[in-house]
Amino acid sequence: MFTNKLKRQWAEGRPAINGWLSIGNPFTAEIMAAQGYDSVTIDIQHGALDYGSVLPMFQAMRASGVTPMARVPWREPGAIMKALDAGAQGIICPMVNSAEEAAEFISYLRYPPLGQRSFGPTRAAFAYGSYGVAANDEVLALAMIETQRGVDNLEAIAATPGLDGIYIGPADLTLGTQNGTLPPGFDREEEVMVTLIRRILSVCKENGIRACLHCGTAEYAAKAIGWGFDLTTVGGDSRFLAAAASASVKTWRDLTGAAPADAPAQPAKGGY
Amino acid sequence: MFTNKLKRQWAEGRPAINGWLSIGNPFTAEIMAAQGYDSVTIDIQHGALDYGSVLPMFQAMRASGVTPMARVPWREPGAIMKALDAGAQGIICPMVNSAEEAAEFISYLRYPPLGQRSFGPTRAAFAYGSYGVAANDEVLALAMIETQRGVDNLEAIAATPGLDGIYIGPADLTLGTQNGTLPPGFDREEEVMVTLIRRILSVCKENGIRACLHCGTAEYAAKAIGWGFDLTTVGGDSRFLAAAASASVKTWRDLTGAAPADAPAQPAKGGY
Amino acid sequence: MFTNKLKRQWAEGRPAINGWLSIGNPFTAEIMAAQGYDSVTIDIQHGALDYGSVLPMFQAMRASGVTPMARVPWREPGAIMKALDAGAQGIICPMVNSAEEAAEFISYLRYPPLGQRSFGPTRAAFAYGSYGVAANDEVLALAMIETQRGVDNLEAIAATPGLDGIYIGPADLTLGTQNGTLPPGFDREEEVMVTLIRRILSVCKENGIRACLHCGTAEYAAKAIGWGFDLTTVGGDSRFLAAAASASVKTWRDLTGAAPADAPAQPAKGGY
Amino acid sequence: MFTNKLKRQWAEGRPAINGWLSIGNPFTAEIMAAQGYDSVTIDIQHGALDYGSVLPMFQAMRASGVTPMARVPWREPGAIMKALDAGAQGIICPMVNSAEEAAEFISYLRYPPLGQRSFGPTRAAFAYGSYGVAANDEVLALAMIETQRGVDNLEAIAATPGLDGIYIGPADLTLGTQNGTLPPGFDREEEVMVTLIRRILSVCKENGIRACLHCGTAEYAAKAIGWGFDLTTVGGDSRFLAAAASASVKTWRDLTGAAPADAPAQPAKGGY
Amino acid sequence: MFTNKLKRQWAEGRPAINGWLSIGNPFTAEIMAAQGYDSVTIDIQHGALDYGSVLPMFQAMRASGVTPMARVPWREPGAIMKALDAGAQGIICPMVNSAEEAAEFISYLRYPPLGQRSFGPTRAAFAYGSYGVAANDEVLALAMIETQRGVDNLEAIAATPGLDGIYIGPADLTLGTQNGTLPPGFDREEEVMVTLIRRILSVCKENGIRACLHCGTAEYAAKAIGWGFDLTTVGGDSRFLAAAASASVKTWRDLTGAAPADAPAQPAKGGY
Amino acid sequence: MFTNKLKRQWAEGRPAINGWLSIGNPFTAEIMAAQGYDSVTIDIQHGALDYGSVLPMFQAMRASGVTPMARVPWREPGAIMKALDAGAQGIICPMVNSAEEAAEFISYLRYPPLGQRSFGPTRAAFAYGSYGVAANDEVLALAMIETQRGVDNLEAIAATPGLDGIYIGPADLTLGTQNGTLPPGFDREEEVMVTLIRRILSVCKENGIRACLHCGTAEYAAKAIGWGFDLTTVGGDSRFLAAAASASVKTWRDLTGAAPADAPAQPAKGGY
Repeated sequence: MFTNKLKRQWAEGRPAINGWLSIGNPFTAEIMAAQGYDSVTIDIQHGALDYGSVLPMFQAMRASGVTPMARVPWREPGAIMKALDAGAQGIICPMVNSAEEAAEFISYLRYPPLGQRSFGPTRAAFAYGSYGVAANDEVLALAMIETQRGVDNLEAIAATPGLDGIYIGPADLTLGTQNGTLPPGFDREEEVMVTLIRRILSVCKENGIRACLHCGTAEYAAKAIGWGFDLTTVGGDSRFLAAAASASVKTWRDLTGAAPADAPAQPAKGGY
Repeated sequence: MFTNKLKRQWAEGRPAINGWLSIGNPFTAEIMAAQGYDSVTIDIQHGALDYGSVLPMFQAMRASGVTPMARVPWREPGAIMKALDAGAQGIICPMVNSAEEAAEFISYLRYPPLGQRSFGPTRAAFAYGSYGVAANDEVLALAMIETQRGVDNLEAIAATPGLDGIYIGPADLTLGTQNGTLPPGFDREEEVMVTLIRRILSVCKENGIRACLHCGTAEYAAKAIGWGFDLTTVGGDSRFLAAAASASVKTWRDLTGAAPADAPAQPAKGGY
Repeated sequence: MFTNKLKRQWAEGRPAINGWLSIGNPFTAEIMAAQGYDSVTIDIQHGALDYGSVLPMFQAMRASGVTPMARVPWREPGAIMKALDAGAQGIICPMVNSAEEAAEFISYLRYPPLGQRSFGPTRAAFAYGSYGVAANDEVLALAMIETQRGVDNLEAIAATPGLDGIYIGPADLTLGTQNGTLPPGFDREEEVMVTLIRRILSVCKENGIRACLHCGTAEYAAKAIGWGFDLTTVGGDSRFLAAAASASVKTWRDLTGAAPADAPAQPAKGGY
Repeated sequence: MFTNKLKRQWAEGRPAINGWLSIGNPFTAEIMAAQGYDSVTIDIQHGALDYGSVLPMFQAMRASGVTPMARVPWREPGAIMKALDAGAQGIICPMVNSAEEAAEFISYLRYPPLGQRSFGPTRAAFAYGSYGVAANDEVLALAMIETQRGVDNLEAIAATPGLDGIYIGPADLTLGTQNGTLPPGFDREEEVMVTLIRRILSVCKENGIRACLHCGTAEYAAKAIGWGFDLTTVGGDSRFLAAAASASVKTWRDLTGAAPADAPAQPAKGGY
Repeated sequence: MFTNKLKRQWAEGRPAINGWLSIGNPFTAEIMAAQGYDSVTIDIQHGALDYGSVLPMFQAMRASGVTPMARVPWREPGAIMKALDAGAQGIICPMVNSAEEAAEFISYLRYPPLGQRSFGPTRAAFAYGSYGVAANDEVLALAMIETQRGVDNLEAIAATPGLDGIYIGPADLTLGTQNGTLPPGFDREEEVMVTLIRRILSVCKENGIRACLHCGTAEYAAKAIGWGFDLTTVGGDSRFLAAAASASVKTWRDLTGAAPADAPAQPAKGGY
Repeated sequence: MFTNKLKRQWAEGRPAINGWLSIGNPFTAEIMAAQGYDSVTIDIQHGALDYGSVLPMFQAMRASGVTPMARVPWREPGAIMKALDAGAQGIICPMVNSAEEAAEFISYLRYPPLGQRSFGPTRAAFAYGSYGVAANDEVLALAMIETQRGVDNLEAIAATPGLDGIYIGPADLTLGTQNGTLPPGFDREEEVMVTLIRRILSVCKENGIRACLHCGTAEYAAKAIGWGFDLTTVGGDSRFLAAAASASVKTWRDLTGAAPADAPAQPAKGGY
């Protein structure tokens, strides 16, 4: 039976850094998995990819030993179960607004009698050796709280049996709770947002579950680890690529003084 | 008829920065094409990709206005002509060792009576509007000199009618000329290599053709532009991604003090 | 921030012709986008394609300047949001039967506080430059009315806040309302169907939203424009291909008198 | 109009053997379709594949004359309708727990007025010639009963108008009804499971619908045919491959005495 | 053993119409194969596709019964043999300039002792049942003559043992022989070209081999059949699609008077 | 620097069993790599796959620890170098007929000054950590002798500096040497072939290089190991799949007595 290394790491009290994949390509997945992350998550929700990319990406990550996870597009049983069968050892589910929704989400990850996951771990069984009902103990269920309704039901969600943790996406949490007064983005510094983020963290601790935060920079992520977060995502493949290439071009243009012919005023950074 | 913007830019005396694609994915191609490069080259030779990726990558780059080019695996007519039909406006050909090989290479890029390119610009005709025999004037032929034999024949190669320029890959040039005394790599600082690189540059200038250099950093590239190079490639997508992710993880680990469970001693950088 | 050209065109009172993509291929998408359409829609519902094709197809269409749209398989948040993140500037949603369903559909297209779209415009942000919450004003929500229940709720649906228009698919509208007395198909000439189609048009006009019609021929579409429709789709890639090839073979056989060996009695036309 | 050969075969009282595809590849699909099966089902639920593979796999199976079917991930209209448009002549739907769910499932397979399938058989129309509303009579609806709730509602489900049969997956049926006392797996020999499986068979017969059973071996399947099952699936592509390769390696090692360097104790069999 | 239907048709004195595939997609291949052609050729040379597309396209064409052929990029053994193993029953080879080149080309299609084709018909053996050395008698070798050198060696090429026919591409033949005085294109009307084309036809007849002509219209093709050609290609998938869509848009704009916002002056037709 | 485990195993005097991949799919590659083979070879020559499949297949095999190799379509530098850059640790080259051809083949695998391999191990460097010129010592060059000319030059080929071994494909060796008197196939029992195969083995031993044999059954392979062969391939993925499925169907039909409706007389076995 396979062992979820991230779960073991957490049990030892060691916080984790998570990599983020938005590019649908097994080569970039293999590159990212080799950079020292504890876990690496494929973003099926907002990433430029779908299941057809997920399978070879998980395969390409396997040799590295990172814990493979997936964020799914929505609380849909088909998508969640297929990600698990393909090898995901943790699922991040967006837009969980109530304990009922949390319980429904969790039920899709657990074989009966705990839940309603259908049995057929087609690739997982080949990749992880024997893979049976005991996977119930290893697969992580991480719910995202991103709306006012979710915040209102925070305690109830955090207390849902079987939930392993809460994953915070600051962009959506801001949009979902601040009624259009603040723009989306990571690494919030506004007091209202910092307070909210830390409150979610506290509720997780009280309920004995993990707290995870999506960050834009290692500096902010380290600060969050200091607050007590168990896992932080830092950046992501498409943003790393754009930022590094853009910086390289800028340095070259600064040093050479060679202006672009008719380039746009500034390079595209991507919004996520 | 389409116009090769890189050729126009050179005619105006403005040096160019070239982007480099080793990841076989249209999303990374679109990202890279948006970062301010003058041209972007798909590396079919060493890149983790083949023709199946080239077509959608050229499509994804089109809206950005960069000049699309390709490095082909070898001096093979099929591969060269297919890259052109897919939309490449310049071909970088590895391992050109003599004027005869240069002439053969060039012949694959030109329609008769100049050469022996077969007519059928399937995608190019849709992407660039009318695309006929006049493409002969726009498509760039760039030969790589990477062996001692190539260096010995440098003047003859540079004088080959129809050649637009020479593209230097310092890793292979070092391996091919230094008899195993120096390791491969970019941004050479050894006097023997700098002298050789600048000699190739001089011969290009004498023959009225362009000189291009593959570089690892913007700083070295800017220096090469100062020497008189017409185009420098700086880095490449897979290296940008690995370096940025690795630096992010390292910063996080330095700030948090959280060691990896059983990660390799140091992250994989890739060799090229 | 990007601007939806189709919305601007409508604001200027100019009707639009929409192209239709059922073939999952970026080359056919690039070809179709070059033929003079105002907008081009990828049919994820009935097209022989899914998300894996949608991304490179939108990329291939980008340089042409047409407004890219998608018809989704169903009123599913994951599918709708992924199409938007990939670059769709309009969503056509099938089987909208009530104002509640219309409101639910619209909520998936709008960031809070207007709706519940999750933030993460991964490709859209690279393709369209800065892409933020203001996308709410540019992305078009077009609902299909195709059942008797939808027709019964027509006025309420058309009055749903945030709905930009109604898109009529005559095949399903006929099946859904005529109780099996009429076969599916476009370009209806039966009085009952023409009356119904024009009634939907009237209700759209009364509610200040756009009316769109899927047509089989340019002639019928022009007639519909004359009635006041704001957009008509004419044909589609797979039907164009089959019809043109079939006509070519028929002409050849008629002119040469050469019969096929054992071909089917008549070529396959496709049903949609 | 196409004819469902499996339906005809059943009408003649002849039981069927069904092939099972979990590998997302058209070459393996073509190979499997050539081995003498009556029908071949693509497992979109647990198979290592999604829609992007389904289309070319159905194309690759077409020449063989087998009846093509699909198991869908869940009772989702989009997924079911896309499988049908791609050419599936039967749909196996997992986790049908009540007559209401059975009716909902069936409605997605039938054009109005029988159901709510949307019209647009894009590939089916090309592959099967004229394809219209009469497809309602040919496309098979097979529901899976896999939970205690499903078993409790067995008679009502079996009596749902339009249902063609029940498909039993013994692994999930065991997990879903035995409260964790028995492990998942095929070819059950426990009396409680045999009794349950045969009871489902009886109820099917009483309701004049077909009974289908997923088996691991031809021997068990033949026994089930003897009980009266109308169709049995035997094994599946990924299991055949793993078992045959594993046996070949074992024979070689037994005969040569050559031990593996550092191979795992025993080869991966896959769990499904 | 499979039988080449095109060869049988020719033996019966019946001329053939060949379809042409430049779009790399199995759905367009299946559509085209259903339109009544005798044979359908995948253009690996100039088509927007490579081997990765060829395999599923041949699979998609199989049920139609057309004779599947491929044009290869160049006289390369690897590419030719892979196309045959994938199921091609005829190979069109570009740029055959001498009897030596013709013999070399033919050798790649025939198993020893006739040639040097390597044995391993991986897909062909599954698709066509028993497939052995006797395939030597069924696979067609068609050489293209497109240069002055090829024309000079016409008689010798046509007399090469094992050659089944000559395939004329008028665009390249014009470019290759007219020294830049005439533009490329099909359906030549210039006396010099018509004379040359009919001379090649005559030499084929004298040598008992087939003559094939690539045409743009059914009208010209029918004329060529009248001259005695054994096979004519008419149009091709990408051109059919572009022409039909363009005509549809034009009709709509003519009828409605609605001008495009900022469309190009005229739609892209593609050059081949 | 990576270590070639197969080379180490041979150095310890332990013979190896090699797996064979003709299906272009990473899931089947991962399955096969888990069955206990010492090495697994992707057959780019006759397999139903090309480079686009090779990369994810090598990635999927990586975690298993088998030595990954590739058979290339022909003695082409581009194809060989791309396979190496993608991670192949050994290359099997078909149709090596002379010492000159062997030397040319070997030169494509070795960086200067030993050969002319171009430097740029794009994926290999990420997958194997530091990957430099020292790869020259680890990458295996295996030449196929399959023609009479190759047999005539056997001693000279075997003595070529840098050659690691000879790989025998009995089907082509039979076709290439027996002048059409024997059909192709594995596991030869004719005295002339056994003698020839064992003579090649002897010459390998005399030259201190490895001898490898492609076999159809474990029994024959074990016999060959007994003769002294260092590596035997047994079967292959597509043959395993077809044979196991066919046997399963036959058993079912024998046990049930249920005949197929209109199936072919016997299932397709594939020819290779």
